[in-house]
Amino acid sequence: MLCIHRRLRQVVWNDQIMILAIDIGGTSTKLGLVEEGSVVARSRMDTLGDADEQAFLDRLVERALALAVKEKVKIRSVGIGAPNGNQLTGTIENAPNLPWTKDVPLARMISERMNVPAFLGNDANAAALGEWRYGAGKRHKDLLVVTLGTGVGSGFIVNGELVLGSAGNAGELGHMILEPEGRACTCGRKGCLEAYVSIRGMKRSYEEAIATTGKTCLDLDIPAIVEAARNGEPEALVVFDRTARWLAIGLANAVCATGPSRIVLFGGLSRNRDLLMPRLTRQFDDHLLNIYKGRVDIVTSELPDDDAALLGAAALTTV
Amino acid sequence: MLCIHRRLRQVVWNDQIMILAIDIGGTSTKLGLVEEGSVVARSRMDTLGDADEQAFLDRLVERALALAVKEKVKIRSVGIGAPNGNQLTGTIENAPNLPWTKDVPLARMISERMNVPAFLGNDANAAALGEWRYGAGKRHKDLLVVTLGTGVGSGFIVNGELVLGSAGNAGELGHMILEPEGRACTCGRKGCLEAYVSIRGMKRSYEEAIATTGKTCLDLDIPAIVEAARNGEPEALVVFDRTARWLAIGLANAVCATGPSRIVLFGGLSRNRDLLMPRLTRQFDDHLLNIYKGRVDIVTSELPDDDAALLGAAALTTV
Repeated sequence: MLCIHRRLRQVVWNDQIMILAIDIGGTSTKLGLVEEGSVVARSRMDTLGDADEQAFLDRLVERALALAVKEKVKIRSVGIGAPNGNQLTGTIENAPNLPWTKDVPLARMISERMNVPAFLGNDANAAALGEWRYGAGKRHKDLLVVTLGTGVGSGFIVNGELVLGSAGNAGELGHMILEPEGRACTCGRKGCLEAYVSIRGMKRSYEEAIATTGKTCLDLDIPAIVEAARNGEPEALVVFDRTARWLAIGLANAVCATGPSRIVLFGGLSRNRDLLMPRLTRQFDDHLLNIYKGRVDIVTSELPDDDAALLGAAALTTV
Repeated sequence: MLCIHRRLRQVVWNDQIMILAIDIGGTSTKLGLVEEGSVVARSRMDTLGDADEQAFLDRLVERALALAVKEKVKIRSVGIGAPNGNQLTGTIENAPNLPWTKDVPLARMISERMNVPAFLGNDANAAALGEWRYGAGKRHKDLLVVTLGTGVGSGFIVNGELVLGSAGNAGELGHMILEPEGRACTCGRKGCLEAYVSIRGMKRSYEEAIATTGKTCLDLDIPAIVEAARNGEPEALVVFDRTARWLAIGLANAVCATGPSRIVLFGGLSRNRDLLMPRLTRQFDDHLLNIYKGRVDIVTSELPDDDAALLGAAALTTV
């Protein structure tokens, strides 16, 4: 009886303890409670609007605890994916798309506040882990996962291991320079992939396309550009042509580095499969070095919205 | 007595058995006999001039056997570094800088002809192995080795392992596109790093620099351009400025992929340290993403001429 009683207690106990996964994006921050590779509850908040990182932390912890209370769950550990998150130090370093200019040791800050272990990594690396373990990247020992959103992030898997690099910050495909005298990038340099393929970059491409027509440029957001493209507006279609071309060149360059067998696209832009993928695969084939042709494919994430990022953030706690 | 006799025979036997290392370049092919991490004898021959790959093989085997006979050595195994060498298949695939247009299964061909095991890999990967085990890359678990010669090759070490990629052909830094509408490359595409930084690329840069002056363009080879630069000729100095800038951008892009702590330069151009390195380090600092600054250095090979390539080719037999 004692034995059964103990097992029963253990089961109940296990059911109530989960990993808190946090995905910090340039515009919104998503939270999820993760158990056995599934996101069982979600919440979200704006990333922007706080006076400093302490005020952000206050809101984040409040939101996390509210989610845990609502779901009657205890939090065992916290995994955080963030732009420029350094997995070796647990610090967000100098992130160009986040409102803090200094380095923020967010893993330590959350751990001290919530009194559980906390692990932080690059948001794109977290998404790569999620896609690799649970999504479209399963069974690929050499994989590239690219996140397309406010910025362009990436996570490389090589020989069955996530590439962290010597200083924990490898995998910045969005900041490969594709046009040395090209557009200014938020990183302070010129011509990065991200200056063309991000949300900001697509808006800029639309402005440029409109400027050549003499029409008045409307300040369109991405959903409006997508809708215009679906309605056949030439300038909006040009945006997708150009974005696909830049992305194709960036991906072809990344293949030259680590030779993955698959590239998984993830995030906002990748959800417009019909507009993006036919253009992208054609341009990718045009720009891929001949020795890689037929040896690498491009697919979009198979996981439900946001789940790769959250599952990957959770996976950071067990790497 | 029998026991001693056997041991004696074994020692004599071991002293006479070595690895034959072969480094196939775009212009010349080097051979070396390697024992315990040292190249103890060398030979070389032209890569070009044969009717087909069988004729090349005939000359290569003849040269190898002549070297072995001269040094009174038996060959235990053969390691071959070659442009576009695929380590997984032992085949030279579609190499743009070699005279054979089809795939050549050189490891199998040499093994059958010489009756010993033979292993083939990418020449730059072989050099990377050589630098990593014996040269300037020792103790760097994340390393990039770049060969600067007829073409631009590279070998990435990540998490203490050579990156082969899913199809065995990773590490083609020379074919990253840096200028999508730029110079034609031998690979059939446009604007690859190699189209600017190789011997061919530097000659082209010199022609372009001269063209702007109205002077007659002399058909200079690289040693002559180097000498002109040392004599302060402005057009020759411009070649080094531009070459350093392109290389810096390519290296900064490679750092974005795998985040190495060191980059080792190797091959012809890297031997002109005084002309290349001050320009390169300044341009690299200008083009490196801020999160990597101070975390990666660039050095030139410390190994004697050709030894990294030969030691690396020998190392292929034990990977």
